[in-house]
Amino acid sequence: MAREDGRRPDQLRPVTITRDWLAHAEGSVLVEFGRTKVLCAASVQDSVPRWRRGSGLGWITAEYAMLPRSTNTRSDRESVRGKIGGRTHEISRLIGRSLRACVDYKALGENSIVLDCDVLQADGGTRTAAITGAYVALADAVAWMRARKLCPGEPLVTSVAAVSVGVVGQTSLLDLCYTEDVAAETDMNVVMTGAGDFVEVQGTAEGVPFDRAALDGLLDLAVAGCAELTTLQRQALA
Amino acid sequence: MAREDGRRPDQLRPVTITRDWLAHAEGSVLVEFGRTKVLCAASVQDSVPRWRRGSGLGWITAEYAMLPRSTNTRSDRESVRGKIGGRTHEISRLIGRSLRACVDYKALGENSIVLDCDVLQADGGTRTAAITGAYVALADAVAWMRARKLCPGEPLVTSVAAVSVGVVGQTSLLDLCYTEDVAAETDMNVVMTGAGDFVEVQGTAEGVPFDRAALDGLLDLAVAGCAELTTLQRQALA
Amino acid sequence: MAREDGRRPDQLRPVTITRDWLAHAEGSVLVEFGRTKVLCAASVQDSVPRWRRGSGLGWITAEYAMLPRSTNTRSDRESVRGKIGGRTHEISRLIGRSLRACVDYKALGENSIVLDCDVLQADGGTRTAAITGAYVALADAVAWMRARKLCPGEPLVTSVAAVSVGVVGQTSLLDLCYTEDVAAETDMNVVMTGAGDFVEVQGTAEGVPFDRAALDGLLDLAVAGCAELTTLQRQALA
Amino acid sequence: MAREDGRRPDQLRPVTITRDWLAHAEGSVLVEFGRTKVLCAASVQDSVPRWRRGSGLGWITAEYAMLPRSTNTRSDRESVRGKIGGRTHEISRLIGRSLRACVDYKALGENSIVLDCDVLQADGGTRTAAITGAYVALADAVAWMRARKLCPGEPLVTSVAAVSVGVVGQTSLLDLCYTEDVAAETDMNVVMTGAGDFVEVQGTAEGVPFDRAALDGLLDLAVAGCAELTTLQRQALA
Amino acid sequence: MAREDGRRPDQLRPVTITRDWLAHAEGSVLVEFGRTKVLCAASVQDSVPRWRRGSGLGWITAEYAMLPRSTNTRSDRESVRGKIGGRTHEISRLIGRSLRACVDYKALGENSIVLDCDVLQADGGTRTAAITGAYVALADAVAWMRARKLCPGEPLVTSVAAVSVGVVGQTSLLDLCYTEDVAAETDMNVVMTGAGDFVEVQGTAEGVPFDRAALDGLLDLAVAGCAELTTLQRQALA
Amino acid sequence: MAREDGRRPDQLRPVTITRDWLAHAEGSVLVEFGRTKVLCAASVQDSVPRWRRGSGLGWITAEYAMLPRSTNTRSDRESVRGKIGGRTHEISRLIGRSLRACVDYKALGENSIVLDCDVLQADGGTRTAAITGAYVALADAVAWMRARKLCPGEPLVTSVAAVSVGVVGQTSLLDLCYTEDVAAETDMNVVMTGAGDFVEVQGTAEGVPFDRAALDGLLDLAVAGCAELTTLQRQALA
Repeated sequence: MAREDGRRPDQLRPVTITRDWLAHAEGSVLVEFGRTKVLCAASVQDSVPRWRRGSGLGWITAEYAMLPRSTNTRSDRESVRGKIGGRTHEISRLIGRSLRACVDYKALGENSIVLDCDVLQADGGTRTAAITGAYVALADAVAWMRARKLCPGEPLVTSVAAVSVGVVGQTSLLDLCYTEDVAAETDMNVVMTGAGDFVEVQGTAEGVPFDRAALDGLLDLAVAGCAELTTLQRQALA
Repeated sequence: MAREDGRRPDQLRPVTITRDWLAHAEGSVLVEFGRTKVLCAASVQDSVPRWRRGSGLGWITAEYAMLPRSTNTRSDRESVRGKIGGRTHEISRLIGRSLRACVDYKALGENSIVLDCDVLQADGGTRTAAITGAYVALADAVAWMRARKLCPGEPLVTSVAAVSVGVVGQTSLLDLCYTEDVAAETDMNVVMTGAGDFVEVQGTAEGVPFDRAALDGLLDLAVAGCAELTTLQRQALA
Repeated sequence: MAREDGRRPDQLRPVTITRDWLAHAEGSVLVEFGRTKVLCAASVQDSVPRWRRGSGLGWITAEYAMLPRSTNTRSDRESVRGKIGGRTHEISRLIGRSLRACVDYKALGENSIVLDCDVLQADGGTRTAAITGAYVALADAVAWMRARKLCPGEPLVTSVAAVSVGVVGQTSLLDLCYTEDVAAETDMNVVMTGAGDFVEVQGTAEGVPFDRAALDGLLDLAVAGCAELTTLQRQALA
Repeated sequence: MAREDGRRPDQLRPVTITRDWLAHAEGSVLVEFGRTKVLCAASVQDSVPRWRRGSGLGWITAEYAMLPRSTNTRSDRESVRGKIGGRTHEISRLIGRSLRACVDYKALGENSIVLDCDVLQADGGTRTAAITGAYVALADAVAWMRARKLCPGEPLVTSVAAVSVGVVGQTSLLDLCYTEDVAAETDMNVVMTGAGDFVEVQGTAEGVPFDRAALDGLLDLAVAGCAELTTLQRQALA
Repeated sequence: MAREDGRRPDQLRPVTITRDWLAHAEGSVLVEFGRTKVLCAASVQDSVPRWRRGSGLGWITAEYAMLPRSTNTRSDRESVRGKIGGRTHEISRLIGRSLRACVDYKALGENSIVLDCDVLQADGGTRTAAITGAYVALADAVAWMRARKLCPGEPLVTSVAAVSVGVVGQTSLLDLCYTEDVAAETDMNVVMTGAGDFVEVQGTAEGVPFDRAALDGLLDLAVAGCAELTTLQRQALA
Repeated sequence: MAREDGRRPDQLRPVTITRDWLAHAEGSVLVEFGRTKVLCAASVQDSVPRWRRGSGLGWITAEYAMLPRSTNTRSDRESVRGKIGGRTHEISRLIGRSLRACVDYKALGENSIVLDCDVLQADGGTRTAAITGAYVALADAVAWMRARKLCPGEPLVTSVAAVSVGVVGQTSLLDLCYTEDVAAETDMNVVMTGAGDFVEVQGTAEGVPFDRAALDGLLDLAVAGCAELTTLQRQALA
């Protein structure tokens, strides 16, 4: 089966990571996975949520959202509807957990970093692009803090990157675009550290349930894809 | 490492599945995984959501909630706060997706079944108990429809069951209770069909990221646990 | 007119009061009036609402809710709709006021007890069952506090119980089930102390307005019913 | 015990009922019970709620609200807080039920009348003033419909009026003003038809529970008060 | 073109300003511009919003709302819909800004005055009537504070009044009533100080865009109208 | 007084208008006024709001929002807070009204165009940049419709552009950046057609009220600025 953009099954889309896209944020990145564009802003705050005060520990949180016309047909704004949908909640939580995996809270001190990931254009893989870009924005925000001697230690213990994989037809594919995502029988998002360990594995049978061999094949693809994204992150930060 | 209730690492808690716990619902189950108690009600409706009308296809949806004092300390009601939290959204969506994996929408006809999973008492594993119990309630609701000749075919193509696994200390454990869940470095929820295929795999590094070997070990435990739960579901429905 | 379950007009449905139904709550009761089942949980908190701080006085509050499939046809969740309906508000307020009638706030000290009354199954009289059960849960929570010497005095000055009465056809009936409630022209809920005094009298003409004689007849029935429930509460707590 | 405005215990405050206070509404009344001022507007709509369509029957509904500075200290607006409080819900429901008691839905045809009762100034008894004034506004709206031949029959089968009574110290008092209401140990709101029958009886022990004799004494006062208000309504409508 | 009420193009409707309309508020005014009636209440509070604490400066804020049946057809309540509409927000903000223009925050001390402007009856010009009346209520509230020596200086540096102007057909008109407002091609609201300076100029082309000459003509009308309203305010306060 | 970026008082910031910034929208523009960046997307829908159905007329609406970190310090998301703030409402309404001024609804047919204006980076003048950019996105969306013969006539009757002006110190300035906006005593936003007529004039005295001469001076600046923006829009669309 040929992919619509001519990629090999194990090939990422062209990835670009543009740092300092915003003037105000302590770290900001426009990350592109093919036509998917996510604007990631890292905001440093010299406080932590109420339940963490006095602990000496920092906190990382994330919010994900899509612009109404980031998608093929316009969606209603969640602010206008007055509530956040389940999918948005779920992805915001995933991004937050993923980024927390690379942070030493003690070294961060009682500071928070909020990662806003706003999808400007969507073509599949928005959550994995968001995580991959947010890490770079986070690294820049931490550098900003370091330069001002705002953290007691080195908060970043590793990097994180994420990619989607899925089975379309009989083929396992890396980094699904929207039409592939819709066609996929199984869909998996994998978040990994720069050291090659897993942070999150979320696999879902959209159609036919999958067996252990399929699961293993998808994990192999994802491991290679995350390694490649880790390299791209390093180059962007160099 | 000994488990606080003396279980072996690969042992489920005592599971009870009480059918027909409610008088009104077309299917209802009180499912207990140790001290975790979830009331699952299946409601048959002779309509489908607006976006599915005229398709000839049915729909399955689920809502999960916790009673305020199901937990050790009282939580605020989501109805009083005026919005549903991210965790509730996420679990409701997981239960819905999981149950949809065992249903043939065409055979269901343009009918919906809503699965309400209300946690009366929580001690870890509420989402996996909910899925396991909801399947039985669903089976009873389908039997109720079948007896009234309300579906054009046989809507159930398999069964689904779910279990949690996790790494505590250096040990991989099956079916974590609350204190184990809190202590776990890695936590995974696995949903499988009665045929032994995967529907959902959701693994999260709460503390230290995990390697491929740990992932494989957890999957082995989960596969065995789900098989055991499938047997218990069959016995309950016999 | 014969009642559908064969009861005499002045006869309660079978009442069961099961204490300690929940593991975590300081007091908990599953109360059943016939097929109506309400789970009452009493949660002790060592604080009072902001407006009462520093007064040395305690507080009692209550929240009532129905599970979506407690009723014959499924209702939407109030958490999903994003707001609490008028009926829920009204009953929560009634339960709170009723329970506050048996409490000496000074003897309670600056502590709160929250009474969560969740209807698992509804067949009429859910608010009166909730009050009757919540008193027993409250008594257990107070005993829990007493054992830990958490209150400066004896907070319980009396007990409270509640029952519904109504006129169906020409007959006054005690403890209406759902079909009787729907058919009633006049419907009254009466809350009384163990000493035989009134805490609340709420009578409503659903159809034809009622005269003084009808009101007096209903009050007589309710007085006897509450006395009987008081006895059952004492036996449950013995 | 002397009342602060020199009234006898069984004496109403001065009551004024000003019809046609608003230019747009089909019926409108500014009702005053002493310093309590409620603006009641009756709006005729040629439709009924969805659940009643096609029944040939009409509907009456009511909404109660207080202006922020109707009270001694300013309250927040419910529109700003984004939700309606329990007390507002409860009183809106009471007013609606009370007014429905005087209407023949069939004679009204498939039309609705909405009664908006907005408290401009509050000094106790706002809900009873609202019911008493809303009846007059309703009668004017029905006359408006009758003049246009919009109803198939005569929708008004009786009138309704309401008054508060309560025990302050040892004395039973009619039509409590705010300071009396706050001091009352028992507080009762009674709604009656012009024919002298009860529509609603809502008695609450704010402090000490009350016995049957106290209840009877309060009902006697309320019966006389409602009869007097019925006369005032008739004079206003003459 | 003749105006429906026979006014000259540059003539205000009859304006009445009734002070002390409410018993509880520190300042209150029922202002009428023809059939438009707005109840303005000024509430003094001995605190300021959180962001202003410790500054030694006061604050003025305003809230505008319409009763459901102030208009020709009934509108839904914003409290029932659970959110405030854009128009309400916009007008509340306009009234607050306008009134703040006449206040010296330092002389007010750390006190707030809230201006509630509730439209009891609407016939065009509700926002301009609200501003004009709110100034008088504010002046009374300030006098109340002055009498109690609650402000460190004299908070009122000028007065404010407002009027609407518009082009209907080819004619520029002062103080539009509802039917004129609907027919207007251009609509402008102008807020001015008693000294004749501009506080707000808000002109909108509802239909055909307007040229500089039309703008100048409307401003001339508004300047004269505001001067007249300023005189009426002074007379009311005398 | 020198401007911080060295501009003359009557000079616009560098303006860039990048068309087709998004892949999915029928028209899209990234508009930049100096450091202010607004992404404008025009979405064509083949339906109109309920109240306009069957009229044969189209509709234009707009929604404005700011990304949380578009500003110097992070703001909370309106979707998370569950409601839209007054400022957002006000600006969305302004943009909608402004764009409607250039459209012939009949020629548009029963179609809607939604203009989403999302501020990616804010440095003053976001609403005027949004209007100026949204016109270009609208023109592209109309061209898209024209190419598909989706409108019965030519919907665009003119163009619209907008600019801010204000008095800082004693100087009238064109196109205020954020620090100038904060320092301005008077602030005015002016929306004009390509033909040089006014669509909206919104002037506000933030500090000292302004006289007629100041108003005239600001209007002169705005007229010239809008003419310049109109030229830039034409060049971008050429």
